[in-house]
Amino acid sequence: MKRIEKLIAQISAPDTKLMEKTQKRLDNLTKPLGSLGRLEGLAKQICGITGKDNPYLGNKVIFTLAADHGVTEEGVSPYPKEVTAQMVYNFLAGGAGINVLASHSGARVVVVDMAVASDLRTDPRLVIKKIAYGSKNMAKGPAMSRDEAVKAIVAGFEVFEDEFRRGADIIGTGEMGIGNTTAASAITAVFTGKPVEEITGRGAGIDDKGIKHKVETIKKALAINKPDAGDAIDVLSKVGGFEIAGLAGIILAAASRKVPVVVDGFISGAAALVAYKIEPKVKDYMIAAHQSVEGGHKYILEHIGLKPLFDLNLRLGEGTGAALAIGLAEASVKILTQMATFQSANVSEKKNE
Amino acid sequence: MKRIEKLIAQISAPDTKLMEKTQKRLDNLTKPLGSLGRLEGLAKQICGITGKDNPYLGNKVIFTLAADHGVTEEGVSPYPKEVTAQMVYNFLAGGAGINVLASHSGARVVVVDMAVASDLRTDPRLVIKKIAYGSKNMAKGPAMSRDEAVKAIVAGFEVFEDEFRRGADIIGTGEMGIGNTTAASAITAVFTGKPVEEITGRGAGIDDKGIKHKVETIKKALAINKPDAGDAIDVLSKVGGFEIAGLAGIILAAASRKVPVVVDGFISGAAALVAYKIEPKVKDYMIAAHQSVEGGHKYILEHIGLKPLFDLNLRLGEGTGAALAIGLAEASVKILTQMATFQSANVSEKKNE
Repeated sequence: MKRIEKLIAQISAPDTKLMEKTQKRLDNLTKPLGSLGRLEGLAKQICGITGKDNPYLGNKVIFTLAADHGVTEEGVSPYPKEVTAQMVYNFLAGGAGINVLASHSGARVVVVDMAVASDLRTDPRLVIKKIAYGSKNMAKGPAMSRDEAVKAIVAGFEVFEDEFRRGADIIGTGEMGIGNTTAASAITAVFTGKPVEEITGRGAGIDDKGIKHKVETIKKALAINKPDAGDAIDVLSKVGGFEIAGLAGIILAAASRKVPVVVDGFISGAAALVAYKIEPKVKDYMIAAHQSVEGGHKYILEHIGLKPLFDLNLRLGEGTGAALAIGLAEASVKILTQMATFQSANVSEKKNE
Repeated sequence: MKRIEKLIAQISAPDTKLMEKTQKRLDNLTKPLGSLGRLEGLAKQICGITGKDNPYLGNKVIFTLAADHGVTEEGVSPYPKEVTAQMVYNFLAGGAGINVLASHSGARVVVVDMAVASDLRTDPRLVIKKIAYGSKNMAKGPAMSRDEAVKAIVAGFEVFEDEFRRGADIIGTGEMGIGNTTAASAITAVFTGKPVEEITGRGAGIDDKGIKHKVETIKKALAINKPDAGDAIDVLSKVGGFEIAGLAGIILAAASRKVPVVVDGFISGAAALVAYKIEPKVKDYMIAAHQSVEGGHKYILEHIGLKPLFDLNLRLGEGTGAALAIGLAEASVKILTQMATFQSANVSEKKNE
């Protein structure tokens, strides 16, 4: 906990003076006032976060954290849990959705084993921060110990710091873990107080019977564990997951280093919610990529106070929505740094009405 | 009119068999069924349009057509009409929003003088298709003759064909013309039958008094010209504009060559509406980039039956939204052509429930 407290003490507010100055610059570019809408807000936010007049997003990183979930024993996912490890190999081979979309946006993908249930083949590109061989079944008891949850958050700090040293101007969050929409739904239920039924979605594609069982499983987990909504680490350890904990750590660490964080969909959103509950100041460092199909996601965004950039009916996770949104973030910064002003382009300004 | 009739006779329906085959391929990629949402639909549409199994969007083109509008005499815009020509120079110098966003998406910008009110400096990068020195004031009579409208559409065919020969795998529409939201609103009012008040927006940023005057001006133009909603060329010539006519021509020509068209915002939408009224089959070739801030845009999209990819509160035009959407279209195709299948990646498929 000391490392967490020390890190969050370093999170400051964005530079609002620079944001005002940036708005004035945006207003002087050759376009009607405000006509680039949310791209302008995004450019301003990124200036405020980084403290830079002309941020350059040359180094873009997507963190895709993998972990298994004991709750899969309850049959909450249509996919066998072996898929978590299989997909890690797919990430490393470059064949997954996140590989394609990150490459499209010029981002590199950092794949992390937080708690995959098997020992993965050695690969120099795989970051190993294995805290456990998956979480425990939260329908029977806590998913992990409090100590493990803290360790997983701190592992997130370390993963971020390693990449920050290599260069990370903007990051995106992503994950893989069969069963992890169950954990994300449980976390969301605790923090937002919304009924489990409204929060729980089809995940990777369960049917009507499956979703009913998933809701019952989450309710059982909440009843048995009694997570304390006032204690983020308690919630995370009892009904969370190791990739969610690691992502919460990455988000906090990025904020402490003034790096913008593009939050992907529902699972990443649950991690963002945990980070926000640990330190509300991280909110200003977050950019919500998209509105996920999973029903609970909108409540997470509402609760933190974020508005997603787009809604393309995505529900893949891995960081795929974040990869697309990083492209928009980069575009917004280019608007600021590359467009001509009315003066430099000899374009007449608006008449006084 | 013969050239228009000849061209639209060449527009066929997309290849629905290939679209079904593409959906099967998408379903076999390493992701839950349908989890890439609208990106999957986009990939499928692009396959259907191009007739290619593995489309490659290497050549991306944004057409930014410029023209002046006689209706600016009525004081419908907060900017002086000289800005149209000044912005053309800005496009050629690379300092405008469209230059930055097209470059971000790897698209080239083709700038066309359809009817700028002044003679522009010679520039090898400027395509000159000047039909007139601006349209006439539609509040006093037709904006152009029927013959001029046809010429402008055919000029659009030629502009497209020139770029198609150079290579154009996907195109986006864009425009510049002080006063052109007034023309777009008038066109939208005629074709959708919605009240002028609901369709008319602030354009480049007029105030409450200005918007009232703009509505009155459009009503006057409709009353004086009595455009016939059953005759697209009549509507275009009486209350349209030369850039709108040229874009309608480009859209029709692209469809005849099986090239997907990403339609930008409100003005481009009005051009799409004209193209759709000339030949409804073009609809399947269109991708609506975004929902514009201009109130009339949603009625255009509804009328044609298009759903925009995103809403970022944009209202700049020039093709800026289309440039961003072309990035998404390219991402969608990469999903199809670059992702691993369950088999190739040794990932287990969904269990039978």
